[in-house]
Amino acid sequence: MNIPNTNKPRIVVIGGGFAGISFLRNLKKSQFQVVLFDKRNYHTFQPLLYQVSTAGLEPDSIAYPLRKIFRKHEDFHFRLAEVHRIDTRQSTVHTSIGDLSFDHLVIATGTRTNFFGNKSIEEHSMPMKTVPQALNIRSLMLQNIEKADITDDPEERKCLLNFVIAGAGPTGVELAGALAEFRKGILKNDYPHIAQKDMQVHLVEGSDRVLSPMSTFASAKAKKFLEKMGVRVHLNTLVASYDGTTVTTSEGKTFDAATFIWAAGVTGSPVETNNGKIEFARGNRYPVNEFNQVDGHTNLYALGDVAYMPTEQFPQGHPQVAQPAIQQGRRLASNIMRLQKGKKMLPFRYTDKGTMATIGRNKAVADIKKMRFAGLFAWILWMVVHLFFLVGFRNRVVTFFNWTYNYINYDKAARLIIRPYKRN
Amino acid sequence: MNIPNTNKPRIVVIGGGFAGISFLRNLKKSQFQVVLFDKRNYHTFQPLLYQVSTAGLEPDSIAYPLRKIFRKHEDFHFRLAEVHRIDTRQSTVHTSIGDLSFDHLVIATGTRTNFFGNKSIEEHSMPMKTVPQALNIRSLMLQNIEKADITDDPEERKCLLNFVIAGAGPTGVELAGALAEFRKGILKNDYPHIAQKDMQVHLVEGSDRVLSPMSTFASAKAKKFLEKMGVRVHLNTLVASYDGTTVTTSEGKTFDAATFIWAAGVTGSPVETNNGKIEFARGNRYPVNEFNQVDGHTNLYALGDVAYMPTEQFPQGHPQVAQPAIQQGRRLASNIMRLQKGKKMLPFRYTDKGTMATIGRNKAVADIKKMRFAGLFAWILWMVVHLFFLVGFRNRVVTFFNWTYNYINYDKAARLIIRPYKRN
Repeated sequence: MNIPNTNKPRIVVIGGGFAGISFLRNLKKSQFQVVLFDKRNYHTFQPLLYQVSTAGLEPDSIAYPLRKIFRKHEDFHFRLAEVHRIDTRQSTVHTSIGDLSFDHLVIATGTRTNFFGNKSIEEHSMPMKTVPQALNIRSLMLQNIEKADITDDPEERKCLLNFVIAGAGPTGVELAGALAEFRKGILKNDYPHIAQKDMQVHLVEGSDRVLSPMSTFASAKAKKFLEKMGVRVHLNTLVASYDGTTVTTSEGKTFDAATFIWAAGVTGSPVETNNGKIEFARGNRYPVNEFNQVDGHTNLYALGDVAYMPTEQFPQGHPQVAQPAIQQGRRLASNIMRLQKGKKMLPFRYTDKGTMATIGRNKAVADIKKMRFAGLFAWILWMVVHLFFLVGFRNRVVTFFNWTYNYINYDKAARLIIRPYKRN
Repeated sequence: MNIPNTNKPRIVVIGGGFAGISFLRNLKKSQFQVVLFDKRNYHTFQPLLYQVSTAGLEPDSIAYPLRKIFRKHEDFHFRLAEVHRIDTRQSTVHTSIGDLSFDHLVIATGTRTNFFGNKSIEEHSMPMKTVPQALNIRSLMLQNIEKADITDDPEERKCLLNFVIAGAGPTGVELAGALAEFRKGILKNDYPHIAQKDMQVHLVEGSDRVLSPMSTFASAKAKKFLEKMGVRVHLNTLVASYDGTTVTTSEGKTFDAATFIWAAGVTGSPVETNNGKIEFARGNRYPVNEFNQVDGHTNLYALGDVAYMPTEQFPQGHPQVAQPAIQQGRRLASNIMRLQKGKKMLPFRYTDKGTMATIGRNKAVADIKKMRFAGLFAWILWMVVHLFFLVGFRNRVVTFFNWTYNYINYDKAARLIIRPYKRN
């Protein structure tokens, strides 16, 4: 795969998500040869993916070319390829474009959608983990509304205008809120022949509150905001099946809905190893020590969502969000540089910067240390933080402008069916 | 298809391109019921499509939701559907979502790519008439450069880094220029292991000059600009075939090129009629009189690229660009309103506002009346005119910001392989 052999130690990184790019950005590059593998040529800013799904932003605002992030690094190599297998004994990765040996291997492969083995949901629902999936949701949503405008059959119309989201974590809540805003801003103006009340957004959650990783204050406020915006929240409700038309809950309740978005779970996305030695922890994650070293290995590291590092504060491992990934990446970079200098590694300590979720205009919730915010201030905070963490100056400006424009005009400019979505 | 029958005359419009939207915007809506059919839910600003292909702009900057254009009109109906056939005797259109009668029918279906019956080119080349096609070119270009960075085979590498464009009209010239800029700005920084000279851009043209619809001054300047930027211009050269790897000219010259873009011709895209009475004119266009009425019909109108209206100035019909389409749309709208008031229609008179093409930064050519410009002034003029005609305030701001950013940074931010392109 055309990687020169030098006498520098080679670090191979799998995955250009938050963990991977944080690691790479913090690495003083000159001491190492670095090879980054990713299946895509861009970093995805996952927290704003729901805005791509709901026509608020285009992909280029939240996706950032991976090569650009590292263009000033020397002896850095990006490879658009999939890593199929890790040979831990030979310290080699087997990829879609050939094999490569490593001195250090950093696994930052994140998570994938978890359908919990439910085939009907896997086959018919819309997941939202990647940019193409988000664009599929955008197309399907718009196609269904277009179809609803045409049909004379009230049953079909109802089904086409019903949107069901499973899972009331941040993704589900933010999606539901954005759909409610779409109804208010776009449906009303673009589809004068469809009554707003005919489009329904249902948020279905298995536990007894929305945003369960957050404070009960945030959960209660978020639910109130959602309901005020007309989202129907169904707590303590599990989805049992979806056949492409009807969502059935475990209690036998049904919703006819042509759009069913699955945001109810993720699972680790580890890479296959040549030997069965790695026993994955809860959520299909690599068990790691406080240096992010995979149990039983000294040159294998797992970072972020795919790492399982139980601590006193988080006995089930860190939350699978951006902050632990970013902080672990940073710490591992400094640790590998310390090792190189003959120093001891320092253990990872998580700094909780708080959690937040946005529901709609002027409506967000934030838990920061012991403080609880809900409403306009939390919403402004949410925007500032997301703009700050968004990668790239251009993306920040374009996103900020689009937000301002959308805010003033109740608009969502990217309501384009570029590639129509076709069900299998 | 759920269109109410009112006592207003019904105007059916096929196609939301420049001609269609110009017509609709200029129509005082209240006197008519209007139904617009389009296969897509957005208007495409075709003159900037090449910037989508070359990663300079995202689709939402140049595509505009059709429903939004008309949201303030009453009794206006957009239908996302394809018109299959026109029944001229019954004054009815047959569409993918049912039949609809009309009082006036406005055909503004534009053109499609013309492969001149060459199957090998049709099968393997990349056309660039639609947003998805432009995105396919973007993906293929980036995929090929990624592959070139991996391979050890010098022949394969050369083929992957060779870009051949057929047709040196505005589209071909602008594409070639943008690719040359991509090489200078992106290849150099993102792919340090690929020498700039290894990426080659060939522009192949059958006639003896580039931009043949423009002045000889513009042609000569444009060719000089292209060559200065490192584009190899091959005049008097026709492409005979392309097998997915090798472009062969009619003289037997060959280029190995993994990317071959076909911008060498368009042909009218008329709708089938139930009777064979319409005899299409040159370039598969509807022969129309000076009121844009299709020959032999009084309530059938063709506009823009798909209309053939020979005049003294243009004995072969108007040039198939935006201006005649926009002006004809405007005139027809006022004529239909005149008819409604019992007045006589006024003949169409074309106002030539000039022609321009951009080649690269600070490099454009413009023919305006008897004036000839080349260089910085023409380039600024080109930008101002394109921003002015771009539909929508948001699109103008985002495009202007992206241009400024790209100009300062020699950057093209949308170099994202969102949907990898797969050859059949």
